[in-house]
Amino acid sequence: MDAVSIIRAKRDGGVLTDAQIDWVLDSYVRREVAEEQMAALAMAICWRGMDRREIARWTAAMIDSGRRAVLSGLDRPTVDKHSTGGVGDKITLVLTPLVAACGAAVPQLSGRGLGHTGGTLDKLESIPGWRSDLTKNQFEAQLRSVGAVVAAAGPDLAPADARLYALRDVTGTVESVPLIAASIMSKKIAEGTGALVLDVKVGSGAFMKTLPDARELAETMVALGTDSGVRTSALLTDMATPLGLAAGNALEVAEAVEVLAGGGPADVVELTLALAREMLDLVGLPVDPADVLADGRAMDCWRRMVQAQGGDPDAALPAAAERHEVLAPAAGVLTEVDAFAVGLAAWRCGAGRVRKEDPVSAGAGVTLRQQRGATVHAGDVLAVLHADDPARFGGALEALAEAFTIGGGTGEKLPLVIERVGG
Amino acid sequence: MDAVSIIRAKRDGGVLTDAQIDWVLDSYVRREVAEEQMAALAMAICWRGMDRREIARWTAAMIDSGRRAVLSGLDRPTVDKHSTGGVGDKITLVLTPLVAACGAAVPQLSGRGLGHTGGTLDKLESIPGWRSDLTKNQFEAQLRSVGAVVAAAGPDLAPADARLYALRDVTGTVESVPLIAASIMSKKIAEGTGALVLDVKVGSGAFMKTLPDARELAETMVALGTDSGVRTSALLTDMATPLGLAAGNALEVAEAVEVLAGGGPADVVELTLALAREMLDLVGLPVDPADVLADGRAMDCWRRMVQAQGGDPDAALPAAAERHEVLAPAAGVLTEVDAFAVGLAAWRCGAGRVRKEDPVSAGAGVTLRQQRGATVHAGDVLAVLHADDPARFGGALEALAEAFTIGGGTGEKLPLVIERVGG
Repeated sequence: MDAVSIIRAKRDGGVLTDAQIDWVLDSYVRREVAEEQMAALAMAICWRGMDRREIARWTAAMIDSGRRAVLSGLDRPTVDKHSTGGVGDKITLVLTPLVAACGAAVPQLSGRGLGHTGGTLDKLESIPGWRSDLTKNQFEAQLRSVGAVVAAAGPDLAPADARLYALRDVTGTVESVPLIAASIMSKKIAEGTGALVLDVKVGSGAFMKTLPDARELAETMVALGTDSGVRTSALLTDMATPLGLAAGNALEVAEAVEVLAGGGPADVVELTLALAREMLDLVGLPVDPADVLADGRAMDCWRRMVQAQGGDPDAALPAAAERHEVLAPAAGVLTEVDAFAVGLAAWRCGAGRVRKEDPVSAGAGVTLRQQRGATVHAGDVLAVLHADDPARFGGALEALAEAFTIGGGTGEKLPLVIERVGG
Repeated sequence: MDAVSIIRAKRDGGVLTDAQIDWVLDSYVRREVAEEQMAALAMAICWRGMDRREIARWTAAMIDSGRRAVLSGLDRPTVDKHSTGGVGDKITLVLTPLVAACGAAVPQLSGRGLGHTGGTLDKLESIPGWRSDLTKNQFEAQLRSVGAVVAAAGPDLAPADARLYALRDVTGTVESVPLIAASIMSKKIAEGTGALVLDVKVGSGAFMKTLPDARELAETMVALGTDSGVRTSALLTDMATPLGLAAGNALEVAEAVEVLAGGGPADVVELTLALAREMLDLVGLPVDPADVLADGRAMDCWRRMVQAQGGDPDAALPAAAERHEVLAPAAGVLTEVDAFAVGLAAWRCGAGRVRKEDPVSAGAGVTLRQQRGATVHAGDVLAVLHADDPARFGGALEALAEAFTIGGGTGEKLPLVIERVGG
């Protein structure tokens, strides 16, 4: 078995055997297959794809590069959610305590943001005192006591994926449905959850720009989860426009807390409840999450979850020193608020990072004052930019140049939850 | 300018700009573009190809990574030959002194073998005392005094190509017409020759297995040379069966000396004269090389060329300690002698190397006793294997298992010189 013959087999459109996949990933982790060889193989996979069996084996080999957790000693079913990443996607912050308050346990191992979509850990770290680095014992203890935990993945969680993801990021090989599906599912399966709902985003602010691509990714991941003994389903949801009004770390935490308090933007509430219902269905808990959100039990669980990880739910959140208003140049209906542009603007304000070792600004980001479909007057404030350094506004405003479309009609749009994939 | 956006552009089927090509190769040489990034780009080029302008710029950038030589102070025209590599291809050994003896100067910078085809330097190094490492001054002095020189490329000759070639070898990205053409032509243009004849091999023992692929490579290279001010033409020649009877380093030198002495296999003589005529035509020397071969002037030049580089043309050549005969299993016409199988057998006997730092055996290889088209009886010796260690014969015999086809007819075959490409 050697790396070149495996690369050539895939390059020429062949199907890799189980033994080849096991060997190449194991050798990569042991540094016997070089970075440049894995980069060439990743590009060959972008080119030729992988069939369902290859993807399943690739995923299994990445899980086996570390340890698949067994979450034992729980008196309730486990269920997790994963989003493929969108602009203003603070759903996890509300959904995790909500579903836990409904009677399930939510064991979420999460990541940091890279590029124009934020990372859940970055958002939670804007809460004074909150920390993401739990030991395995701390993670399981919090799952038993609170039922909700969001923490950083440890070095045991699919280490092959961690290395491969960093490599793909610098070699232009991120955009491959088989590699994306294997990356996400290896981590979620290894995490030990019994059930999983995938929020697969579609649109300008999402990784998948078209519905067929998003559907293919969703179907691939649902099959991978199911075949690995994890009850899995997916919702395809609209990411042409940002979710809610806030994009940025502390700004999104504040909006999540509003939703937990019974308010907040209608689209955030709608998607949170749709995903909560899907998660509760998967584990057979006949509870209406709308009641649990309305009566404050979700908020109580949020406070316990934050406190268990050292955070102070009552502390003031960090705010950026500088603000800049973006005004409507004309009157009309806001037919489009482009998610990618808003995400890029928030990133340029300092909410995201260029390199993975960069820090992020807790207070930076974008708050929208108007959502898609609103009627605006010339001079109305459309959005406010937040940054620690006003020098950042130039790039952010450039990103927003085409973000807002003010027209005569109401615009065509997809429903927020477009369709469901799953058994 | 950054590597990821260039990789993504090619991955998505785009055409790279001159600035992108210059930047990525320059940054690669300066180690600011990483090996894994160049590997991904090379695979994307295998996938998407490059157009003529991209290939020309890629070639120019590789030349500019070092220095393009100017061969001055010569009283005769310069012309070189490059073969894309075949089994038993010792043509350079005869052709270089022959064309020099006809009045041209042949400034050949050559390489070593990797895989089943031998390298010209490895062959010449089997001559006791001969050395390939000349300084630029020694190289030019020998070109003036002898008119013929075959030496190793120095570190100034297209260093980007040297690194890229080593990378492609370990990443399954060798098989790309644009990258092959740019690699060959960057070295030949940088070498400083005024004219160039390409021997593009077609068939099982060659890199290009089919005539359309070989034609595409030939046309690409002829255009590259012509556009860079080098008069260039190509012959497409048959490599379904080995050239001559010998495959192996000293074994091929001995056969070349036979041809220089007026004997040797007819196919070696035919191809040598065809390439010599093409070279002499390009530089306008109306000499018949057959006369120069017949009257011993080519042999004289060979002796001076070998001596000028420290070699003893009268010394006995190294011979392998062990021999093994391969017998005909049945009577009939030898309709096929497969070039790839014979090359692989010679390589496994020790004539070639697995890694580029491996030594080669001077005496190892295969000598055929019969060529394609011969009538044989059961038990006739078809070939003799030569190796320093008899343990090598097992693998070599395995390689030869299907090499010889004995049938009833005479077999279909292409002419040795299939067609010419050039202005």
